[in-house]
Amino acid sequence: MNPSKQSDLGIVGLGVMGENLALNFDRNGFAVSGYDLDEHKRESFARRTGAVAPRSLAELVAGLGAPRVLLLMVPAGAAVDALLAELRPLLAAGDIVIDGGNTRYTDTHRRILELTGTGILYVGAGVSGGEEGALRGPAIMPGGDAQAWPRIRPILQAIAARAEDGQPCCEWMGPGAAGHYVKMVHNGIEYADMQTICEAYFLMRELPGMQPREMSEVFATWNRGELSSYLVGITADILARTDPETGRPLVDLIVDTAEQKGTGKWASQAALDLGVTAPTIADAVFARTVSATRSERAAAAEVLSGPDARFSGERDAFVEKIRRALLAAKVCAYAQGFQLLAAADREHGWDLPFGSVAGVWRAGCIIRARLLEDIRRAYVREPQLVNLLLDPHFAAVMADCHVALRDVVATAAQHGVAVPAFMSALAYYDSYRSRRLPANLLQAQRDYFGAHTYQRLDRPGKFHTKWTDA
Amino acid sequence: MNPSKQSDLGIVGLGVMGENLALNFDRNGFAVSGYDLDEHKRESFARRTGAVAPRSLAELVAGLGAPRVLLLMVPAGAAVDALLAELRPLLAAGDIVIDGGNTRYTDTHRRILELTGTGILYVGAGVSGGEEGALRGPAIMPGGDAQAWPRIRPILQAIAARAEDGQPCCEWMGPGAAGHYVKMVHNGIEYADMQTICEAYFLMRELPGMQPREMSEVFATWNRGELSSYLVGITADILARTDPETGRPLVDLIVDTAEQKGTGKWASQAALDLGVTAPTIADAVFARTVSATRSERAAAAEVLSGPDARFSGERDAFVEKIRRALLAAKVCAYAQGFQLLAAADREHGWDLPFGSVAGVWRAGCIIRARLLEDIRRAYVREPQLVNLLLDPHFAAVMADCHVALRDVVATAAQHGVAVPAFMSALAYYDSYRSRRLPANLLQAQRDYFGAHTYQRLDRPGKFHTKWTDA
Repeated sequence: MNPSKQSDLGIVGLGVMGENLALNFDRNGFAVSGYDLDEHKRESFARRTGAVAPRSLAELVAGLGAPRVLLLMVPAGAAVDALLAELRPLLAAGDIVIDGGNTRYTDTHRRILELTGTGILYVGAGVSGGEEGALRGPAIMPGGDAQAWPRIRPILQAIAARAEDGQPCCEWMGPGAAGHYVKMVHNGIEYADMQTICEAYFLMRELPGMQPREMSEVFATWNRGELSSYLVGITADILARTDPETGRPLVDLIVDTAEQKGTGKWASQAALDLGVTAPTIADAVFARTVSATRSERAAAAEVLSGPDARFSGERDAFVEKIRRALLAAKVCAYAQGFQLLAAADREHGWDLPFGSVAGVWRAGCIIRARLLEDIRRAYVREPQLVNLLLDPHFAAVMADCHVALRDVVATAAQHGVAVPAFMSALAYYDSYRSRRLPANLLQAQRDYFGAHTYQRLDRPGKFHTKWTDA
Repeated sequence: MNPSKQSDLGIVGLGVMGENLALNFDRNGFAVSGYDLDEHKRESFARRTGAVAPRSLAELVAGLGAPRVLLLMVPAGAAVDALLAELRPLLAAGDIVIDGGNTRYTDTHRRILELTGTGILYVGAGVSGGEEGALRGPAIMPGGDAQAWPRIRPILQAIAARAEDGQPCCEWMGPGAAGHYVKMVHNGIEYADMQTICEAYFLMRELPGMQPREMSEVFATWNRGELSSYLVGITADILARTDPETGRPLVDLIVDTAEQKGTGKWASQAALDLGVTAPTIADAVFARTVSATRSERAAAAEVLSGPDARFSGERDAFVEKIRRALLAAKVCAYAQGFQLLAAADREHGWDLPFGSVAGVWRAGCIIRARLLEDIRRAYVREPQLVNLLLDPHFAAVMADCHVALRDVVATAAQHGVAVPAFMSALAYYDSYRSRRLPANLLQAQRDYFGAHTYQRLDRPGKFHTKWTDA
């Protein structure tokens, strides 16, 4: 890079993500510069990328060609607000600020309002793929001020991952906080994907008592079929890994206490706010919280009874059932995620491009999977698809897999293996395809104790019964 | 009542709840007055209760003995803020304002802060029991400014329901928003209680194909045993009711679209915020949202495959299994609710009286149940009980019932009957008693794609593996 020429883009917030993105931009012919408060990070950035890393934000901004493009890669929250306060006097109308962090969509919404009238174009962009994705090509979900898109499109699409058909995994998601909302839903689905994979592993470990090496082979095989995905692939890698010091499978040495950074929680809370049925995403979050109570669980294991049932099934047949159950649960989790996007779309009037959402997720991001091409096609066939389960392809997948999901849930229930995400996926499927749920009784209860009224099947209107005068 | 003497208490927000509370106060020897913007409500109030209903808030306040006690029974939200703005100039230091509505605890917290320095004592009081409870004796959960308690205690405890041991179902819950928080958790448990009862009914209706009259007898029998509770009792009543016009069971004519007013959603969101595992409460909320998509479900029923399995079990044995499953699920839902209270207690430093919480819920409120005396005793035995499931009594209940819950979940799964709350209760139980969950794999996945590190079982510290250099 030539430090004297003006940069196409300035990255604020260095570290491995920032460095990797810089190398990616450079590889694609864009001149970048970087800034971080931390001198060591600036030095590391300059050394590793060869890009300039001036000592102040003002110098960084001064070195950018107009209209300036800044990409913020700082921790979501107060750091973004502090940075924006510092940036505002340095920027002019037409300059573009892209927040590439895992920002809660409500914060992006607020910041857009706060920048109204400044002429600064604000973009909230979900970026997925971790450090490796940043280097090789992430999935990028930008949204916000549409005037910014023509300027940043060539830059962002150049560094984005590419799907098998060559399309860049970066498309405009819509106005306002659409980009960060789509990323939040991506992460909610990611929670469900990870939890269902963990449950598949848990069943193989606890029931036929398979060893990590054997399970690695199973996941590697699955990764060549319908379940082909980044997360299934890394699971195969993880289960194959031996701890060099003890010679034991590394996975067996890792503490079963899941941590989280909040995006799955946000997605679940957003679903609750919009009245969207997303139990598999929420149950994946709850699976993490219960795992975190490890000492409580150890005490409970001493006190609470489990079943006596011994697993006597045939191993390979059971593994195949788990494969189908995993596929079915995955489809249900995606259906919930897209229902959440559809509800947010109605709420905010974003006009979200559902097909492009699936298209962007096909490569680069953590949930990338063969399945996503099928989802993209479903939304291309029917842009206003009411539920992914109603698409003919996915209805056929469920027809093929629901019996296996039932068998796996029943077996887990009888044998005391906790599979909250599999169970909630099945309950979601069976609820959704139920012409008549028991909510008629629930409405009667509400009317009984709270005079909340009910509707009748045989005539229009609201009705109240004086139940206690029977 | 004598309109010329000063009132002990002024009710703001009339309607049936306000009228019934006024009759209750009057029966217990307290002089009340009432105010509502709506002239018709004032007239109805005066006519039905004999109490005064002046035409303005100022007149109402002027007619109260000092220190004044005002009970707000207006819809939660903006109406409370508007009323407080109007009341502030009319009140003096030492006066007490009780918000008896279903207010979100965060609003109560904010209002207490806003009243700081005015000397007005603010109390957020959860009131449960519906219109009938208001008249006969509700459960009341007051919290806020403790200075108010000695003054309002005799008034509120006089009108509250009484438990079998004669104790009033009204105790001080703690400072700040403790009262409304406890009420929110009450409602979260109520959602789970109602949903599990609906699932019990759904199973009886869909599998042995029982008629409402038969199921009414089952619930009436259950109501004489361990499951004895208001909600089981009203379910027996509801299922026995015949529509006078058609001669058909009324429950069969009610539309299966559940509505909600948000308190179950708030409880679920609060659990997510505090990292508390409360899936059965959340799944009860999601069961309502999916029921509300009735036309989608009708379309889905045409497209999505169900199982071929036919129920061939023995009816009475199956009904007994459902009874035990319902009891087990109910215990799990209460365990989740009390875990949420414990987490909020740690977060806010309220020093919640868990035994009194259960004690107050024993009568008057919607979730009143024989079980609550056992819960009260559990917290008297061990005030710092980590989880209700670990109490010897409840561990024994679960030992007695978990196999039935397993059988019912397995049967529902195989027969395509959606029982999300039963399933999540079982998953909660099995997760909580699992010494080793599969979160070790999940932590490895997080470390693989995000370098989030993991802990090891065999040594302290945080570890990161370069997974891709295998």
